[in-house]
Amino acid sequence: MPEIRQNIATKEWVVISTERAKRPEDFKTTKEKKVLPEISEKCPFCPGNEHMTPYETYVVNDEYGKWKIRVIPNKYPAVLQEGTVEFKVSGIKRSVTGVGSAEVIIESAKHNVVLPLMPEKDIEQIIKVYRERYLAAEKDKRIKMVIIFKNYGEQAGASIEHPHSQLIAIPVVPFHIRYRIEEAMRYYDETGKCVFCVMLEEELRLQERIVVETGHFVSFVPYAALAPFHMWLLPRRHTESFGEITDEEITDLAKNLKLTLSKLYYGLDNPDYNFVIRSVPVNEKGKEYYHWYITIMPRLIKTAGFEIGTGMSINCSLPEDNARFLREIKIR
Amino acid sequence: MPEIRQNIATKEWVVISTERAKRPEDFKTTKEKKVLPEISEKCPFCPGNEHMTPYETYVVNDEYGKWKIRVIPNKYPAVLQEGTVEFKVSGIKRSVTGVGSAEVIIESAKHNVVLPLMPEKDIEQIIKVYRERYLAAEKDKRIKMVIIFKNYGEQAGASIEHPHSQLIAIPVVPFHIRYRIEEAMRYYDETGKCVFCVMLEEELRLQERIVVETGHFVSFVPYAALAPFHMWLLPRRHTESFGEITDEEITDLAKNLKLTLSKLYYGLDNPDYNFVIRSVPVNEKGKEYYHWYITIMPRLIKTAGFEIGTGMSINCSLPEDNARFLREIKIR
Repeated sequence: MPEIRQNIATKEWVVISTERAKRPEDFKTTKEKKVLPEISEKCPFCPGNEHMTPYETYVVNDEYGKWKIRVIPNKYPAVLQEGTVEFKVSGIKRSVTGVGSAEVIIESAKHNVVLPLMPEKDIEQIIKVYRERYLAAEKDKRIKMVIIFKNYGEQAGASIEHPHSQLIAIPVVPFHIRYRIEEAMRYYDETGKCVFCVMLEEELRLQERIVVETGHFVSFVPYAALAPFHMWLLPRRHTESFGEITDEEITDLAKNLKLTLSKLYYGLDNPDYNFVIRSVPVNEKGKEYYHWYITIMPRLIKTAGFEIGTGMSINCSLPEDNARFLREIKIR
Repeated sequence: MPEIRQNIATKEWVVISTERAKRPEDFKTTKEKKVLPEISEKCPFCPGNEHMTPYETYVVNDEYGKWKIRVIPNKYPAVLQEGTVEFKVSGIKRSVTGVGSAEVIIESAKHNVVLPLMPEKDIEQIIKVYRERYLAAEKDKRIKMVIIFKNYGEQAGASIEHPHSQLIAIPVVPFHIRYRIEEAMRYYDETGKCVFCVMLEEELRLQERIVVETGHFVSFVPYAALAPFHMWLLPRRHTESFGEITDEEITDLAKNLKLTLSKLYYGLDNPDYNFVIRSVPVNEKGKEYYHWYITIMPRLIKTAGFEIGTGMSINCSLPEDNARFLREIKIR
């Protein structure tokens, strides 16, 4: 019997479709394996081509003074840095000026590295840059939300193959986020607890869906995973904003993220994926009921009319099977 | 300056990204043109292969007694017909048994026809079958929502190329739908009007985003279109449930849908798309503040981390340009 599961925190429903279920190994990607060069002449993110991008806003150099991580304004920004926030309401038209920031974090000078195969130390530096840029974006009084995300591979919407992630800061809080906060608040008011902390505690007790446990972080396939191999990576410490992550936690997050992504990389043959750092809106800090986390979404299936029409998902795999499969993949 | 627009009815935000904007003609698909046979030997939906599918629940025959439209239970159903609705709550786990119905509407005996090129009369018959199956599904006391949708092409999640659409009836109302209804109710309580009727009236007055007007229906690119060429097709008459559509309205809907989809077909070289009939939940009938409609979503772009993290969209085209482009396409 298929089961329709609900995520206790987000209240999202997902049909766990046993009749269409596939085995975890059936999700291995069949995409063409490309061998990439260390430097690509035409790539705007490769060393030597710095003139092809806007001037950097932040840079981390290696011991020889060459850049290792480079943050640049997006050349085709979704929102613009300059301008004031102006709401316009006229008849059915409601809009706000698209101001904010849109940055690209070039994760390495090398064109052909992938995040899960980088040394932990390098991932640690990337996360430190995330924190730095997150805190910088947050200071802008016009900003209501800061999103950091990575699109890896064509199915995940990446148009450039050079390793990079993005930051977008926007002047509104979408209802999708308001709704989550409201639900978390309701849970807190009823029980005195953060629903994300409760979820993490229960997942650790059950051990059915855990993928990687490290000192400060835990990754798992949620009970109501929206798609095959969808994962959450939560800090054990209750904090609502990614900006509050400590240096010690960053070291541990680098370790956990590397392991978690490696399991996807080896287990499913380097699938396309997105990850997103989900943090509280800027003006909602200090809330006891919200918890930041990273959502990792491999792009293995296509959404269709049912998902558009209901906002629900159909997951043709069992979260417990996905988690077991990933746990069993040994990483040296 | 990019503009972040909000849909007055759904409250969805979308970044209308002028910096990334493409011209309407840039969205023409480049997919390989396949010439399909009228009958495909291996296709489970083709005549002669009826034994490859479950037994039909409904059928429309032509004048020679051969089937023209065939409704079958989905062989790989998301939800199962047999069973009782049981909610389970235990710790962080919340679920309901996956009961309901999942049907496939085979739109034609011919493997190689496409909906926009079918005669109006045939489309009319298909919509009559939609209504028939919608009303049948609604009668089931276990059902809370009925979704009818079409996935056309691989990008839209279709796995079989034979022309077909689907019906899924589920025992829960997802929050995505609850939220829309709540917003529509709030608008009604404040103004005494259906927000969808107001939107339609205003779009007709402005004439900026209209695509096709017929006697009973209007298609337009919404002011806050979520993606390039995203369209809404609304009945002029205020009705909250698709099940209430009259025969006369069906005749007109066939005409409008054919024209609207033809403009996509000719204008963008036969793009993949989904459409969904969005109707009120079964137990919410008689509401004065909700309005059923069809959402048409061409699958021309990929969603990425920003969309996952915010629930917002980035539309790299201007709704007014999209609508003008489609209006100017002449259909014989």
